[in-house]
Amino acid sequence: MKALVYAGPGKMSWTDVPEPRILHPTDAIVRIDTTTICGTDLHILKGDVPAVQEGRVLGHEGVGTVTEVGASVTGFTTGDRVVISCIKSCGHCSNCKKGLYSHCSGEEGQPGTGWIFGHLIDGTQAEYVRVPYAENSLYKLPAGVTDDQAVMLSDILPTAFEIGVQAGRIKPGDTVAVVGAGPIGLAAMLTSGLHGAATVIAIDPDEGRLARAREFGATEVVNPDNPGWIEDVMAFTDGAGVDVAIEAVGIPDTFEMALGLVRPGGNVANVGVHGRPVELRLQELWIRNISISMGLVNTNTTPMLLRLVAQHKIPAEKFATHHFPLEQILDAYDTFSRAKETHALKVILSRGSDH
Amino acid sequence: MKALVYAGPGKMSWTDVPEPRILHPTDAIVRIDTTTICGTDLHILKGDVPAVQEGRVLGHEGVGTVTEVGASVTGFTTGDRVVISCIKSCGHCSNCKKGLYSHCSGEEGQPGTGWIFGHLIDGTQAEYVRVPYAENSLYKLPAGVTDDQAVMLSDILPTAFEIGVQAGRIKPGDTVAVVGAGPIGLAAMLTSGLHGAATVIAIDPDEGRLARAREFGATEVVNPDNPGWIEDVMAFTDGAGVDVAIEAVGIPDTFEMALGLVRPGGNVANVGVHGRPVELRLQELWIRNISISMGLVNTNTTPMLLRLVAQHKIPAEKFATHHFPLEQILDAYDTFSRAKETHALKVILSRGSDH
Repeated sequence: MKALVYAGPGKMSWTDVPEPRILHPTDAIVRIDTTTICGTDLHILKGDVPAVQEGRVLGHEGVGTVTEVGASVTGFTTGDRVVISCIKSCGHCSNCKKGLYSHCSGEEGQPGTGWIFGHLIDGTQAEYVRVPYAENSLYKLPAGVTDDQAVMLSDILPTAFEIGVQAGRIKPGDTVAVVGAGPIGLAAMLTSGLHGAATVIAIDPDEGRLARAREFGATEVVNPDNPGWIEDVMAFTDGAGVDVAIEAVGIPDTFEMALGLVRPGGNVANVGVHGRPVELRLQELWIRNISISMGLVNTNTTPMLLRLVAQHKIPAEKFATHHFPLEQILDAYDTFSRAKETHALKVILSRGSDH
Repeated sequence: MKALVYAGPGKMSWTDVPEPRILHPTDAIVRIDTTTICGTDLHILKGDVPAVQEGRVLGHEGVGTVTEVGASVTGFTTGDRVVISCIKSCGHCSNCKKGLYSHCSGEEGQPGTGWIFGHLIDGTQAEYVRVPYAENSLYKLPAGVTDDQAVMLSDILPTAFEIGVQAGRIKPGDTVAVVGAGPIGLAAMLTSGLHGAATVIAIDPDEGRLARAREFGATEVVNPDNPGWIEDVMAFTDGAGVDVAIEAVGIPDTFEMALGLVRPGGNVANVGVHGRPVELRLQELWIRNISISMGLVNTNTTPMLLRLVAQHKIPAEKFATHHFPLEQILDAYDTFSRAKETHALKVILSRGSDH
C-alpha cells in the first residue's frame, strides 16, 4: 500500500510500505477513507519529537472502513464506517478506568502514552492502518455524518473541548478568552457554548483569523498588536478579568497572556503544545485563587461530541477548508504548512474518487 | 489600650495606642481574649509586605468577646464569644456572592483584598480590635470549644483545608503528599481525611517535624535529604506518583518537588506564600494532565470546620504548643521565630489571668 513515511527531520515520502496486519486479537485493520494533517505532524517533521523514528507512517486522525478485526473484537465488523481516535486506550489499566486514556498503560506503543499513531506505531496517513484496542479506539459513524465532519472527532474537537472547555471549568454565563484562533482555538470557541459560555473573546494578531473566529462562536475579537488591547479585553468583563482563559498556541508569550487576563478565582486552561519553559511569577500569582490546567486529550467525550455533530449542533465541517486526494498528500502538507497565506484550517485528504 | 505596633522593618513595640471605635454601622468592637502569630507576621516584620505601614497594629488571628456593635449589626451582641476570621467579606460584592471572600471588593482596607487585619487596617495583636463587616467576619463560638482550638479557625485550618485539600480536589482513596510539615502542612494533613485521603505522606527535612506529622494524620513520612527519597514516595503509590501534592512552604524548590511527585491526571495545590518566581517546564508538563491551584483562603469553610472542632473530629488544640500572656508578646514572637529550636507550632497569647 501507499503511505506517508517520515524519513528524518525535514523529509517524508509518499511511498510503498507493507500493508498492516492484525498483530493482537484486540486489533482491527481500517481502510482510510479520509485523513487530515495536524500541527503536531509539522512538529514531527521538523524533528521536534525525537520518539518518532525514521520509517514511521505519520498521522493520527482518520475516518475509514473496517476491513478486518482480531479474534476478540466483537463491537465492530468488516464494513463498519468508523472514526479513529488519536488516543489508544486498552480500557482496563488504572488510568483507562479513570477515563485518563491519554496516559493509557496498555503495552501498545509505550505504557503511559495514549498518543501512539504516527508517533510510536504507524499512523493514519496511509491507505490502511492497524488500530490497537479497536473496541476502545474506534467509534461507529451514524448515517448522515460526513467524513469531513467525522475526521474532526479524531483530535481537534475533543482536544479543545476536554483540555480547554472542560479542564477550564467553564460555567454558564462565563466570560472566556481564547488566546490563538487556529484550528484548536476555533474548536474551543465552537464548543465553549456547551458549558454555557456567555462572552467568548478571540485573541489573535491575524485579522483574517479574527474575522473567522466570529463564525466559530467568538462574540468579541481583540488583536493583541493593538495598544490598549488588555483594556479592550477587560471592557468585556467587570474589569477584573475573564473567568476562563484558554491558551491555544503553545509559546511562553501566549501562556503569559492567558495568565494576565484571568480574574481572581478564574482558570487558565493550557491546550497549546509547548517546547519551552515559562516563568511563573508565583510571588504575584499565589494570592489570586487561580488554577492552571494542561494535558493531552483523553477522547472520552468523542461519543458525546459525535452525537452533537450528528444532530447539527456542532458544525464540524467548517474546519475543512481544503480538499486533496490522498495521493497528493505532499501538496496538502504544503498548503497546511503555509496556513498564513492559504488560510487553511484543516486540509482534508480523501481516498479514491469519493471527493 | 496596648497593642503590638509595627515600626518599620525589624522593629515592633508593645505600646499604647488609642482604643478602636465603631467607624461604620457594620462594624463590631471585639476584646481580644486569645490571639496568635502567623508566619506572615514574620514576613511583615522583615519588611517583605510593603503595604503594611509603620504604626500598623499587627495580627490577623483572634478569639474574643464582642464589646460593641454598629447600628446595622443584628447577628451579634455585646458579650458574644467569637472567632475573628482573617478575611473580611462585605457579603454583597460579586466576589463575596461567589464565596470568593479572599478578593472581597468591599471598600474596607482595599477593594479586591480580603486580608486586611494587621495589613491594611489594625489587627488582632492588641487588647481590642475593630472588625469590619462583623456579620460576615465573626463566628459565634459554641460552648465547649476552647480558645486554643478556636483561634486555629481564624486562618490555618481553613487555609490548609480550602487551598490545600479542597483546591487540590482530594478524593476518597487518594494518595496525598504534603511538602512541608509546618503548621499549615500539618493542618492539611489533619483535614485531608475530610475528603477521604487514604495515604498521607509528609515530606520535610526535619525529623522532629516528621515525627510530629504522624500525630497530625500522616500515614508515611519521607525526608528529602535522604538519597532515593523520590523512590520512597513513589513506593507508596502505584509508581506513577501521588494523586495530589500540597505545597506548604513557599519556595521554588518545594514547588518543584510537588510538581515532580504528582501523577498524570493529578493536582498540585500550592498553599505556600511565595516571594520568587519559579520556572514551569511546560515542555514536559503540558502532556501530563495536571492542574496547579493557588490562592488565599476564603474562610467560607470556617463554620463547617468549627462544627467539626466542636464535635472533637478535628483536634485543633494540638497546634497550641506554647502559651504566653498577651503582654509578653515580644517573647512569644521570639519563641515563634525560633521554631526550629523551640519546636513551636502556634504560640498562643491570652488576655489577663485566663491562662
